[in-house]
Amino acid sequence: MKIRIGIVGYGNLGRGVEAAIRLNEDMELVGIFSRRDLSTIKPYTDVPLYPMSKAKDMRSNIDVMILCGGSANDLPAQTPELVKYFNVVDSYDTHAKIPMHFEAVDRAAKESKKVGVISVGWDPGLFSLNRLLGQSILPGGNDYTFWGKGVSQGHSDAIRRIEGVVDARQYTIPLEVALDKVRDGENPSLSTREKHLRECYVVAKEGADKSLIEETIKTMPDYFADYDTIVHFISQEELIRDHSRIPHGGVVFRCGTTGLDQKNKHVMEFKLQLDSNPEFTSSVLLAYARAAYRLNLEGISGCKTVLDIPPAYLHPAPVEELRKQIL
Amino acid sequence: MKIRIGIVGYGNLGRGVEAAIRLNEDMELVGIFSRRDLSTIKPYTDVPLYPMSKAKDMRSNIDVMILCGGSANDLPAQTPELVKYFNVVDSYDTHAKIPMHFEAVDRAAKESKKVGVISVGWDPGLFSLNRLLGQSILPGGNDYTFWGKGVSQGHSDAIRRIEGVVDARQYTIPLEVALDKVRDGENPSLSTREKHLRECYVVAKEGADKSLIEETIKTMPDYFADYDTIVHFISQEELIRDHSRIPHGGVVFRCGTTGLDQKNKHVMEFKLQLDSNPEFTSSVLLAYARAAYRLNLEGISGCKTVLDIPPAYLHPAPVEELRKQIL
Repeated sequence: MKIRIGIVGYGNLGRGVEAAIRLNEDMELVGIFSRRDLSTIKPYTDVPLYPMSKAKDMRSNIDVMILCGGSANDLPAQTPELVKYFNVVDSYDTHAKIPMHFEAVDRAAKESKKVGVISVGWDPGLFSLNRLLGQSILPGGNDYTFWGKGVSQGHSDAIRRIEGVVDARQYTIPLEVALDKVRDGENPSLSTREKHLRECYVVAKEGADKSLIEETIKTMPDYFADYDTIVHFISQEELIRDHSRIPHGGVVFRCGTTGLDQKNKHVMEFKLQLDSNPEFTSSVLLAYARAAYRLNLEGISGCKTVLDIPPAYLHPAPVEELRKQIL
Repeated sequence: MKIRIGIVGYGNLGRGVEAAIRLNEDMELVGIFSRRDLSTIKPYTDVPLYPMSKAKDMRSNIDVMILCGGSANDLPAQTPELVKYFNVVDSYDTHAKIPMHFEAVDRAAKESKKVGVISVGWDPGLFSLNRLLGQSILPGGNDYTFWGKGVSQGHSDAIRRIEGVVDARQYTIPLEVALDKVRDGENPSLSTREKHLRECYVVAKEGADKSLIEETIKTMPDYFADYDTIVHFISQEELIRDHSRIPHGGVVFRCGTTGLDQKNKHVMEFKLQLDSNPEFTSSVLLAYARAAYRLNLEGISGCKTVLDIPPAYLHPAPVEELRKQIL
């Protein structure tokens, strides 16, 4: 019997889950749930659409709900609410509020005897896992996290809010010279400016003051002021043609030393290069949906994160097979 | 209270554990156990030495025994025997026999209500974990594992057995052109020869036939015949001066595609660069010793591998703290 999956929310992430399920032979998609007018939703595949209000009624038809809403407005309420009826997985990524979200989901999940896995994806998610491994194995070493090359939605939005800007796309780019220093085991101290560059492609309104826009971007506090920033003005056609994909990625390093005199250097590196940030995140969500389902079958309930889940629960093969083939 | 650690076997790995414990503030070293004449053992630190026969008597003084013997002759008997009295961790790495070793340790550990973690290190170990993550997240993709640049003890030994050879050191070197193809998401098919190069530093007996030695190395089945191999003849002094360290490392890749038309490529990469293979392996053993101790405190027993252990058990900080700081 396949694991029956439901998707809540049909944006980039929801579409990614819809596509990724087809690669997971032990899963099937039961339906997509949305608060929007369903007639405006055109799924890739032939899958039933349901209004959110019908979700509860489907509790016996769905094993795991994948929550594809946003961390700011959707998930803080949705995850604790839906875990009353389903095992759920979300990609909650507001780092500072994770403990609060955890508590809310844990309380509801323990009451309903379901599993809620939160903050799944690559950061938080796989990057967190690698920070944990690095710190556990090389105590006294240093962590480095780099992001990109990739599109930052938050920074792109910040540019779009500037007077005279029609559209924009911002790439976060890790600086090669910094990456090389870390890889060489130099344990460098790196300022914000030394780690990442920001490159912006901006469509301006006709007649807008481009030098003022550029200045406004480059001096914007929090977003750009602490970085070297490059601004290109291009046409809307060029933006659509050359910058419609949503690539991302990054690298987590742990650098430490061992031996009685601490002379031997070690560098652990975990790197992602992703053509599509939402599609990769969706793929991670599905692996953790499998884990949520299996944990719950074993009678486990409550809120979990990537830090809590035994890795073997993520893989479709039985653990005896994994010991033979993978270990 | 600190986790009380014992070391069984005092070779490179045992020495690595002895040094690494000093970096782990939640652990203390209680003693080193060996079958050798104890007067021949000179530990780095001021730690008591015990004959192996005394191990059982120390069962109430030691929380986890780190087994630092070899996979061929020591661990198959030692791990199931010592798990009768202690939580244990070993680095058993004979891939084909892992299921058998698992069964033997599991049976003994369940009876004694202890935890035995086997096959800990980086391969098997961290590399296995990354193969599992990659396969779980990108089904239908390809795995690639590269080793090196690093010293292969097995290949060095094979050269030493050749008539006329005094000493030898063999480096396994991954080919950059192959790494680049994988990193570019080309999903290449790579032959053995296309993945790794073998470079050998050989000390020959005076008057030995060097060209015969070189030919014997390059055509040796299993070890060298399928690779491009470079042989350098050097003096014993040069070997000691330039090739006494035991560096190693490698890379595990998972490359896959997502999206409805499978057009978006993703590359996951986990890379290790290690100045000292045994010292890094020792550091991994200690992190898993912490996990073994904690799992057993919770009443869990039996044989475990890196695939079974929730990551948070490896880190000294409480999981609430990890959710705040690392996730």
